[in-house]
Amino acid sequence: MTQPVIKVAIAGYGNLGRGAQAAINQSPDMQLVGVFSRRDPASVTLIDNSVPVYSMDDIAQYKDEIDVLILCGGSKSDLPEQGPKLAGLFNIVDSFDTHAKIPEYYESLDTPAKQAGKVALLSVGWDPGLFSINRLYGEAILPVGETYTFWGKGLSQGHSDAVRRVDGVKSGVQYTLPSESAMERVRSGEQPTLSTREKHTRECYVVLEDGADEETVRNAIVTMPDYFADYDTTVHFIDQQTFDRDHQKMPHGGFVIRSGVSGTENEKNNQTIEFSLKLGSNPEFTSSVLVAYARAVYKMNLAGETGAKTVFDVAPGLLSSKSPAQLRKELL
Amino acid sequence: MTQPVIKVAIAGYGNLGRGAQAAINQSPDMQLVGVFSRRDPASVTLIDNSVPVYSMDDIAQYKDEIDVLILCGGSKSDLPEQGPKLAGLFNIVDSFDTHAKIPEYYESLDTPAKQAGKVALLSVGWDPGLFSINRLYGEAILPVGETYTFWGKGLSQGHSDAVRRVDGVKSGVQYTLPSESAMERVRSGEQPTLSTREKHTRECYVVLEDGADEETVRNAIVTMPDYFADYDTTVHFIDQQTFDRDHQKMPHGGFVIRSGVSGTENEKNNQTIEFSLKLGSNPEFTSSVLVAYARAVYKMNLAGETGAKTVFDVAPGLLSSKSPAQLRKELL
Repeated sequence: MTQPVIKVAIAGYGNLGRGAQAAINQSPDMQLVGVFSRRDPASVTLIDNSVPVYSMDDIAQYKDEIDVLILCGGSKSDLPEQGPKLAGLFNIVDSFDTHAKIPEYYESLDTPAKQAGKVALLSVGWDPGLFSINRLYGEAILPVGETYTFWGKGLSQGHSDAVRRVDGVKSGVQYTLPSESAMERVRSGEQPTLSTREKHTRECYVVLEDGADEETVRNAIVTMPDYFADYDTTVHFIDQQTFDRDHQKMPHGGFVIRSGVSGTENEKNNQTIEFSLKLGSNPEFTSSVLVAYARAVYKMNLAGETGAKTVFDVAPGLLSSKSPAQLRKELL
Repeated sequence: MTQPVIKVAIAGYGNLGRGAQAAINQSPDMQLVGVFSRRDPASVTLIDNSVPVYSMDDIAQYKDEIDVLILCGGSKSDLPEQGPKLAGLFNIVDSFDTHAKIPEYYESLDTPAKQAGKVALLSVGWDPGLFSINRLYGEAILPVGETYTFWGKGLSQGHSDAVRRVDGVKSGVQYTLPSESAMERVRSGEQPTLSTREKHTRECYVVLEDGADEETVRNAIVTMPDYFADYDTTVHFIDQQTFDRDHQKMPHGGFVIRSGVSGTENEKNNQTIEFSLKLGSNPEFTSSVLVAYARAVYKMNLAGETGAKTVFDVAPGLLSSKSPAQLRKELL
């Protein structure tokens, strides 16, 4: 391939930023040119020292040296503040994942990106992201049917925090699991009505403080309103060593299932489309999606597109480093 | 919704054409305006008589009355002949599925479509089609990894014909099944090297002629070179009534699995993306995909695009009857 190398930078260097650097290292058509951080650059340790770390305060100086900037900040406060500013300077891609605020955030990026002649691709990752695309494909292809999203097996940060707040808990994590029985009902074509809590179960792994009582802690967890009371919750007690060995990763995943019906009133046929992810590392996977879409952002802007975009606006071929002719020959 | 209704016609009325009519009936933003057939129009019976049947010879007369023409002919002889001609008259979408000839067929549509200012979308369905898109997403997002395509459980026309040619077979069908053990190896992250025959098993249902011998027939099938000899093949003998009741449908499906690795040399994580279909009717599902993409063809041409296109060129949002703002709010 003699295509140009895409110059990419990362803004924000937590789990997502580290994952983005690792994913760029797997992409020969991309070059990481720098990492921007709000911390003192000297204090930021990269997964490898191939690029400089700059202060976020100086980012505007690098306006002409970066083809796409990958925003790796959080959705709660980082992105709403940084996104609109950076969209006026760079082509950007982010993983904004507060579903209810997407329309508002979209608008906040669209104007600066259009004025700057840049593309701002928001809410990239797996949900929102690949799951959203599969929800869309499912209902567009099988308009008569139901779509089901299940999450897990995955570490839930909010619920893990809730477990750790319980008296007597030294260390704790919580995994959300899709309910196997609910998934089988969906796959059968039955099209059941299921609440979020009917679709999921919860599993906790807890290390007790010295002297704490198992049954008291278990009871405090499984009866906790909002978090656990309405779910089928299992609590496992383990020692610190097991906890440190087996529960330091951030696995996640889930399923999008479209159960539809085709044919005529007299002769109907069930049709099922299923998409699933089993992720060893949730942040690294999200970063991998961000990096593939950074490539698409570059191509879209090169083709003259500007303004805010979502994964729904991105043709699949733009994600690949291969040419359209090569894709038709090798992958179609 | 006050959007315009898309005027669609069907060229060719076999299983795919019937499925397309059923799928259009499920799409309130589309109107079927006619069916074209090479047979005597009076001899063509539609699934409902809501539209006229015309002779294919007269199709050019309807040039200005059709927004998108869905070609429902076969890939072997119908589409290579009809596609290039019709691409010069209409926006078209087809399900050309001879993988090796896609680049050549693409070229044969591109010039007439461009000259006519139309869009010609080829090779739409599930493989090529949705499976292709998932192969692309998989390798673009997880560049370090392997992609596996499994087919089935599905009726194979060619293998069923082979079974029926065996002496002593009165009725017969053959289903291709994905090998469960091969799929488990792939899902584990092992990234095994697997041939097509290691990935699939074959299952035959046979009704014997009077006086035919089970073991002779079974042996003739399982040892048949090219078709069965190299596969794990099971033959079930059933009576005609069971055959007629249980084996008249055309189920199919399959799996596309991307098994990849993210992270760094020192800390790798397995990541698995899986897409699967379980189809009660293979032709009806292919038709449903064709109809959703007919909507995209209409929008792309309206936006000024022309020439040959594949599913890789179609942004997901174009498949939906919902507006971009509605999609962002409801599905992202």
